[in-house]
Amino acid sequence: MAEIRRVEVLENLLKANDYLAAQLRQEWDEGKTYVVNLMSSPGGGKTALLEATLPRLADRYRLLVLEGDIETERDAERIRALQVEALQITTGGTCHLESHMIEQAWRLVRDGPRPHFVFIENVGNLVCPASYILGEHLRAVLMSVPEGDDKVLKYPKVFRNSQALLITKADLLPYVDFDPQRVWEEARGLQPQLSHWIVSARTGEGIDDWVRFLQEQRDEAFPPG
Amino acid sequence: MAEIRRVEVLENLLKANDYLAAQLRQEWDEGKTYVVNLMSSPGGGKTALLEATLPRLADRYRLLVLEGDIETERDAERIRALQVEALQITTGGTCHLESHMIEQAWRLVRDGPRPHFVFIENVGNLVCPASYILGEHLRAVLMSVPEGDDKVLKYPKVFRNSQALLITKADLLPYVDFDPQRVWEEARGLQPQLSHWIVSARTGEGIDDWVRFLQEQRDEAFPPG
Repeated sequence: MAEIRRVEVLENLLKANDYLAAQLRQEWDEGKTYVVNLMSSPGGGKTALLEATLPRLADRYRLLVLEGDIETERDAERIRALQVEALQITTGGTCHLESHMIEQAWRLVRDGPRPHFVFIENVGNLVCPASYILGEHLRAVLMSVPEGDDKVLKYPKVFRNSQALLITKADLLPYVDFDPQRVWEEARGLQPQLSHWIVSARTGEGIDDWVRFLQEQRDEAFPPG
Repeated sequence: MAEIRRVEVLENLLKANDYLAAQLRQEWDEGKTYVVNLMSSPGGGKTALLEATLPRLADRYRLLVLEGDIETERDAERIRALQVEALQITTGGTCHLESHMIEQAWRLVRDGPRPHFVFIENVGNLVCPASYILGEHLRAVLMSVPEGDDKVLKYPKVFRNSQALLITKADLLPYVDFDPQRVWEEARGLQPQLSHWIVSARTGEGIDDWVRFLQEQRDEAFPPG
């Protein structure tokens, strides 16, 4: 009689995206790679935030950036100009990153020395990226001052699903009507644990605090020593 | 013998969205209602453009605004403050408008006096709205100065599928690096027939030209007299 072969099926069947994300997360945890997923509208300041953040980490940490865009390598080129490794993921029309895209990029580098931080710059979109976990440790949503202070309740999911909120382009505050307090209150109404900063990549305002937070979060996830 | 009943099937089977959009377009053409679909990133300035545009049309034309948002009635309330009729379409998570949503809103008003202009404010998203026609006569994409001048080739579809491009928030030009010429050239490389303006809802710059264009387009679609 032929041997009966069993395939154990997970009780909680995850969607393919979440299943792959969990595999990535396990691999990142084993390699002590802390992964941050940055989400915002187009022009919300994700690349500029990275341009301000990466040089403040580069002397202590190995860094990798995964750049999600529908088309072009423009953002990856800006990161490479900082002497930081960047892989461009062009989605070819898809309006968000999914974990299989991350996996395909990660595959190119997983056999080399493991980075201490990976920053994933999602496609510019305040809606759909909120629905796709990528195995990240931290989800950060950026909202730029010129977008206006009425956006939280209009696009609630990304705020509900994030742990960090950065109000960007603070240098434009003198020129537009924008009440940061309104944004904090509406966002924390959706997600009481949300940490938040007001930053300007141009002037450097708030960037050191944000970078310190990233280091603390990584130390908490992977206690040193 | 029973009569053989035939259903003629259209040779070119349209997707449900396009089929409904074609029906809406026919009804709008019959009623001489000119329909404009406004698309941009969140905070791209769609509502502010309407706040500047509608008062310049209100003395000559009957106006209707269909406001697309994921949640809240905030934009519709801004339009109603101008004494212009506005219907809010809350998509409940969907990141773009589809023609069946437009049809459901239009059904509420189609038996009244037909508007001369309908403005559809799409969900704030530079990606997905580009894939859904809504029966509109004119597709206008807005890009705000603080979003940055590198967005056209990163989000090409919405520029390729539009007839009008408005660079908004021109009053912020002194405070950011933004080259309108770069945007025009990249956009017209994708869509040579694109008409374009640079506008500021705050100062009024460019708004009269844009409003004149709208009137000319409507006169061309529905010749007066």
